[in-house]
Amino acid sequence: MSDDTGLEAQIRFLREADRLKGVVRASPLIDGSRRENSAEHSWHLALYALVLGGRADPEVDVGRVIGMLLLHDIVEIDAGDAPIHGTVDPERQGALEAAAADRIFGLLPGAQGTELKALWLEFEEGASPDARFAKSLDRFQPLVQNVAAGGGTWSEGNVSREQVHARYGPQIEAGSPSLWDYAKRLVARHFG
Amino acid sequence: MSDDTGLEAQIRFLREADRLKGVVRASPLIDGSRRENSAEHSWHLALYALVLGGRADPEVDVGRVIGMLLLHDIVEIDAGDAPIHGTVDPERQGALEAAAADRIFGLLPGAQGTELKALWLEFEEGASPDARFAKSLDRFQPLVQNVAAGGGTWSEGNVSREQVHARYGPQIEAGSPSLWDYAKRLVARHFG
Repeated sequence: MSDDTGLEAQIRFLREADRLKGVVRASPLIDGSRRENSAEHSWHLALYALVLGGRADPEVDVGRVIGMLLLHDIVEIDAGDAPIHGTVDPERQGALEAAAADRIFGLLPGAQGTELKALWLEFEEGASPDARFAKSLDRFQPLVQNVAAGGGTWSEGNVSREQVHARYGPQIEAGSPSLWDYAKRLVARHFG
Repeated sequence: MSDDTGLEAQIRFLREADRLKGVVRASPLIDGSRRENSAEHSWHLALYALVLGGRADPEVDVGRVIGMLLLHDIVEIDAGDAPIHGTVDPERQGALEAAAADRIFGLLPGAQGTELKALWLEFEEGASPDARFAKSLDRFQPLVQNVAAGGGTWSEGNVSREQVHARYGPQIEAGSPSLWDYAKRLVARHFG
């Protein structure tokens, strides 16, 4: 592949990524003016990783975590967002996301598409230390947003403190016990 | 400072950062549905760096570039966006941004606030190889958006091909001559 063909393919991917700005999530902005979209959510998470990276286990590579977080929702361009308090069938959602990953990372030059799709899949599987920390932030940020917005998706869905613990706790704690300690105090104050 | 005080300060900064999602830029989304905000623009630029980082000079640290791009617009929370085809007084805008940087990075724990403000300032000054590549992408992405949207801010402002060359060229070329070669071809096709 000539250099120009490679660059054309990279730009095609980057143009396609623009559509993530149109995927709306359940979580609100803190000022309550509207819901967050998946592109700005991905930026916010990458910033969480930049700021909180020093709290991860020493073997965590914060640069790789940031790369994962920049990419982690890109499959939602085809598959849509599956809200944490929603009723999406995880098997069907997983199949949609896998097909989306094939199509979207397939826009890139071959070797780079393979590499970035592997980084996305590592996040999805959540088995490596980097992926566990990334997934921890992906639950921690919406929790902070909900508390700061005065309830957010919890108020809308009548979500109880016990449900918050069950739905956010394991994933946050697996990546960062200290963030979960802090989050539990936020949650206690919110419901208290 | 106890660990908890430090974490509280980090979360305060991350909550404040949410407001960047409400700063609207001149550039459109590619589908023309609305204008881009500075948070999703920052995500898109970080993704540009992740995908195009291999085209930077070998001394460029793509991880640092991504950090810069995640932070580069955060001062707009106080100072607003200064559109490239607008008439903002650069001296006044610079003073507003410097004050914003003091306030916003000042929310972080001391050492981290100093470090991240220095990274922001390095971007602003544009003198290091990392900053030059980051600033190159910050001009290249809106150019790609405008062409893909069929004109965008160029059509709105009656911006000519010569003005595009003058306003985008030097900054793109300084960070990446090969991206500017490609951009010139896009621009020629658009105005051609």
